[in-house]
Amino acid sequence: MNASLQPAVFGATGYSGFELVRLLTRHPGAKKPLLLRRNGEAGGCADLAEAYPQLAGNGGFPLQSFSWHELKSAGVDVVFFATPHEFSRDVAPEAIANGFRVIDLSGAWRLKDRGHRNVYGFTEKPEDAALDNAAIYGLPELHAGEIRNATLLANPGCYSTSIILALAPWIRAGFADLEHGIICDSKSGVSGAGKAPTAKTHFVEVDGDFSAYSVFGHRHTGEVLEQLGIGGGSLQFTPHLLPIPRGILSTIYVKLAKPATAEELELSLREFYAGKPWVRVFGAARLPQIKFSLNTNYCDIGFSLSPDGKRAVLVSCLDNLLKGAAGQAIQNMNLMFGWDEREGLQ
Amino acid sequence: MNASLQPAVFGATGYSGFELVRLLTRHPGAKKPLLLRRNGEAGGCADLAEAYPQLAGNGGFPLQSFSWHELKSAGVDVVFFATPHEFSRDVAPEAIANGFRVIDLSGAWRLKDRGHRNVYGFTEKPEDAALDNAAIYGLPELHAGEIRNATLLANPGCYSTSIILALAPWIRAGFADLEHGIICDSKSGVSGAGKAPTAKTHFVEVDGDFSAYSVFGHRHTGEVLEQLGIGGGSLQFTPHLLPIPRGILSTIYVKLAKPATAEELELSLREFYAGKPWVRVFGAARLPQIKFSLNTNYCDIGFSLSPDGKRAVLVSCLDNLLKGAAGQAIQNMNLMFGWDEREGLQ
Amino acid sequence: MNASLQPAVFGATGYSGFELVRLLTRHPGAKKPLLLRRNGEAGGCADLAEAYPQLAGNGGFPLQSFSWHELKSAGVDVVFFATPHEFSRDVAPEAIANGFRVIDLSGAWRLKDRGHRNVYGFTEKPEDAALDNAAIYGLPELHAGEIRNATLLANPGCYSTSIILALAPWIRAGFADLEHGIICDSKSGVSGAGKAPTAKTHFVEVDGDFSAYSVFGHRHTGEVLEQLGIGGGSLQFTPHLLPIPRGILSTIYVKLAKPATAEELELSLREFYAGKPWVRVFGAARLPQIKFSLNTNYCDIGFSLSPDGKRAVLVSCLDNLLKGAAGQAIQNMNLMFGWDEREGLQ
Amino acid sequence: MNASLQPAVFGATGYSGFELVRLLTRHPGAKKPLLLRRNGEAGGCADLAEAYPQLAGNGGFPLQSFSWHELKSAGVDVVFFATPHEFSRDVAPEAIANGFRVIDLSGAWRLKDRGHRNVYGFTEKPEDAALDNAAIYGLPELHAGEIRNATLLANPGCYSTSIILALAPWIRAGFADLEHGIICDSKSGVSGAGKAPTAKTHFVEVDGDFSAYSVFGHRHTGEVLEQLGIGGGSLQFTPHLLPIPRGILSTIYVKLAKPATAEELELSLREFYAGKPWVRVFGAARLPQIKFSLNTNYCDIGFSLSPDGKRAVLVSCLDNLLKGAAGQAIQNMNLMFGWDEREGLQ
Repeated sequence: MNASLQPAVFGATGYSGFELVRLLTRHPGAKKPLLLRRNGEAGGCADLAEAYPQLAGNGGFPLQSFSWHELKSAGVDVVFFATPHEFSRDVAPEAIANGFRVIDLSGAWRLKDRGHRNVYGFTEKPEDAALDNAAIYGLPELHAGEIRNATLLANPGCYSTSIILALAPWIRAGFADLEHGIICDSKSGVSGAGKAPTAKTHFVEVDGDFSAYSVFGHRHTGEVLEQLGIGGGSLQFTPHLLPIPRGILSTIYVKLAKPATAEELELSLREFYAGKPWVRVFGAARLPQIKFSLNTNYCDIGFSLSPDGKRAVLVSCLDNLLKGAAGQAIQNMNLMFGWDEREGLQ
Repeated sequence: MNASLQPAVFGATGYSGFELVRLLTRHPGAKKPLLLRRNGEAGGCADLAEAYPQLAGNGGFPLQSFSWHELKSAGVDVVFFATPHEFSRDVAPEAIANGFRVIDLSGAWRLKDRGHRNVYGFTEKPEDAALDNAAIYGLPELHAGEIRNATLLANPGCYSTSIILALAPWIRAGFADLEHGIICDSKSGVSGAGKAPTAKTHFVEVDGDFSAYSVFGHRHTGEVLEQLGIGGGSLQFTPHLLPIPRGILSTIYVKLAKPATAEELELSLREFYAGKPWVRVFGAARLPQIKFSLNTNYCDIGFSLSPDGKRAVLVSCLDNLLKGAAGQAIQNMNLMFGWDEREGLQ
Repeated sequence: MNASLQPAVFGATGYSGFELVRLLTRHPGAKKPLLLRRNGEAGGCADLAEAYPQLAGNGGFPLQSFSWHELKSAGVDVVFFATPHEFSRDVAPEAIANGFRVIDLSGAWRLKDRGHRNVYGFTEKPEDAALDNAAIYGLPELHAGEIRNATLLANPGCYSTSIILALAPWIRAGFADLEHGIICDSKSGVSGAGKAPTAKTHFVEVDGDFSAYSVFGHRHTGEVLEQLGIGGGSLQFTPHLLPIPRGILSTIYVKLAKPATAEELELSLREFYAGKPWVRVFGAARLPQIKFSLNTNYCDIGFSLSPDGKRAVLVSCLDNLLKGAAGQAIQNMNLMFGWDEREGLQ
Repeated sequence: MNASLQPAVFGATGYSGFELVRLLTRHPGAKKPLLLRRNGEAGGCADLAEAYPQLAGNGGFPLQSFSWHELKSAGVDVVFFATPHEFSRDVAPEAIANGFRVIDLSGAWRLKDRGHRNVYGFTEKPEDAALDNAAIYGLPELHAGEIRNATLLANPGCYSTSIILALAPWIRAGFADLEHGIICDSKSGVSGAGKAPTAKTHFVEVDGDFSAYSVFGHRHTGEVLEQLGIGGGSLQFTPHLLPIPRGILSTIYVKLAKPATAEELELSLREFYAGKPWVRVFGAARLPQIKFSLNTNYCDIGFSLSPDGKRAVLVSCLDNLLKGAAGQAIQNMNLMFGWDEREGLQ
């Protein structure tokens, strides 16, 4: 396989951005990525290895300013945005207008419903409506076909990925009692809160603690509802902060809409994910734990059925920086450029 | 206040037992506890300070074997069991027959319903039926009156305390839709798993990980149902293991049975716990976090109400070794011997 | 004991300040402290319980601005500074000029030698020279007599306390080969870096990591040299950052200046600290660990002697926020106001 | 590159063994390893993925018993021992007698000096003397030539690797004052203590703690002395237990034997490691931290020079399960079978 694709990355200094650079650097089909400095980016470093000395010994990773014209001359094929959503909302349209395909890791382009988008507080510019419509939600297990042709790829949220992948099979198969309502109790490591140091991410505050936050109001809720095709009354999502650097576990409570055995429920998951390399279905014998998928691009899914067969608890796990962000972005890139979904992720 | 009470402790070397000794040692009404060696106790140390050098500088804490007769001669008033439930099931009846009051921190005597007790696998001896009936469930916020006169005090489970205290006010006030069902998603630190080293408590396994366990089958479920006076179909409990040494947070999902404002719901909690020194009701502004109650005997309770006012999420926190075990045992001792509930716990 | 002393505290919102408030609140001889807002203090909260909800249920802890005159009217006896050293350097002289006794937890007044002070970059005002001379270094195990009469008490650094207490006995007894040189390899938890969120204290950066810093240049070195009465060539100090919230362990390498048995070396420590309640000498059987002194005011000291009897490794541990800061400040307050050193610290 | 080499592994269930299997599985030159069950191995699992579910989705990893004859028939080229040293001492000679090359990760064959070996308490069988002599110490940066032809490869200890690699250049160049003595203060994550659950590895004991152990008596000391060609009086080694899963940092104190600038000292390191892909020399600007080399096969080395130019502090870091164990074993395998040292490790 020849390294023929030239990627460029905005936001390489964040946690997702760094993982993206690491993955691109060892991807056999990709050239070393150009790291794009945002205009007026504060606290910037000249080379990514200053912020991440773990890169030492692998050559330079300069952060540079480029014009769109210079990016074209450099043969760039795809521009990644691992940036705050405001930046992506502003700059991704320019990239597309200049002929680049875009993979955006922020929440800027994930939502079709204006009501859901409101939670981000974007100014809704009329000229963005077409892009809002054209953007493809980049969950390969649901939308591989559209992803292949995407110009603007909206990479899913980390919590959303863990919830949607767990629930999609049973909702499609009619196993979930939507009227009763589904409860998603999710827990995430601290890197999900980003690299900016705040009171909430201070080691002394986080270590030994655990807390719920954004109850009834987390931004990822809209993605989950849109992708599962259900209304707000059918699902409730509560995120929590785990005192670990990375990883998400979602505990999902489902009342069954019709009687089902554990075998039927497991089969439903296995059939849905047959041939999907980055979802692992765990049998009844063992529930997934955060560690099993850490540092991998897997989403692991398992469940327990109540003794009376009326309720089930789904548990799904993933690494929020990989299947929940940079890994999934690479998986999407693989589809967009005609490669195997696994390429560069093993 | 004179130190007039002579306590004795079985199981001082465990985590709850050590906390108990620490609390008794500085309790103004209690003499230094006698530490009782169990017959044939393996891996025993001669002095508790060998296992817990943090005790150094506070005199000796010898672990010794005593006959019941010797305990009487030593003027012992109360015997604590911080032991496995099998031991308590065997030995507590002897202690009571010899005239001692007993405070048992195990699950041996908490359950009235034989079906619930079955989960422990006790052999049900006919002669224990009277004690099963006489045992008082030691949750002071619900049963202070009976606790004062208890001979056999069954100290509640750690998870159970966090769930019962959060739910009791709203269930009594009719706010909780029991038919819809309540979901309790609880998370506990590792000391809840005990001091015996196992694959599940190895630092390398736990650190950075998070997992659910005993889904649909945890032993504390029966306590919760009995104390709240509800059936098994009304409540679902899932415990998880947090990578922290101590602390429990329970996230509890309630569908409201009747319309209520946040003010009414908060008032219900505040009225229920008025004059109860060891429960803190958090207002709508801030949910409790594990750290707030760590190293204290408080149970902290807060909640969020959904925008449509139909569902609420309760969050309760406590230190599993204090309000969830040894601290609550002292609170019960205070009631049993006529002292203020706060004595020795501040 | 009547609560007769009225303390006031600058800097209550920091980690040391909060511990100080917690200790003062339960000290039997002290009234509830007045919490002093610094002029223009940024990000301030109206009540300390907003920043530390663990205080809930103990009444209000308002942060307020006071004039010196108001503090006098309020009967304040002593003013604590748990503030950056620049603030203490500016404001402590005013407090003293207004008749208050001062206990300063910063590095502002600890050093007699101007060369050592230079590392802090103070502007040396001529009018401060008298205070520099009058300030008493508040290590009670070395200077109890002077501390009793101190007007300006300079509370020692956390690292310094762990090193000075370990080395003072052997240096005085002539056991340490100063010409060969002593090496102090110290490790501290993250609270030593303060409460301000920075890249160095971000949970994701610290968790799972470990690093040396300020090699050959840490500010506490001067204190150690002055208090031990030795020159810079005799001692080398390297601090490291531990991924834990609190606690310091110093590993100290000493070449013996004269032959000695382990018994003689242990006796030297035991005699030096006889009657000193807050130092525990560990025998040869067991070295101290950080956990043993956590949440206490103890400094624990132990050592190993090489098989050839020529070299020894001292290990000392303490809680950097207690014996290394707020606890030691209370111990000093006890001496300054005629109480037992243990008061309020058990 | 064809996968032509057939490895077999004793001890795959331990932490080093699992890393070894993981590395071999993705090594382009190696077939999937055969996992060898030790006779009477307790608590064994039928498939490695039971103990390490992170392996799920990569086919089976059965643990099986084999005779030497069966291993030959299976075309095995090399047998890895990731086992206790007693097992390796017993079984490795058999493997060699049966014509297999052996890479042993235990301490069984590392030491030439019988006095140093005594610390392990082996029974010294006469027939093992030849193997003791023939065994090659597998530190590729020092012994690449001999490693290529090794039959019995003794993979170095984790601490030893971090210390030897840091000191070898300056000792060979005469910069280190050996008469004065070198002090190595090392800190390791918990996986270095192995996978067996013990009181020392219980999460509740380790988390938030830090301690020194085996002062003046750690088994790795002999390796360091032999490899550096120095006597026991010249170097002192103190290990400590860090509350992290993996990683080692050694802080090494050197008095310079002759005046040197920082540039000269850095050049000495750079020249020594020129062309050595798995050692990274950090410049004066930044010392290595544990995180930089975590999950890699790098050993990172940096230093600080005292202002008077007379003393230096070396800091070296590595991942104890990779460059300190399984990664280095693969690096040795690469040399033994004629491949690039980097193969399968990037």
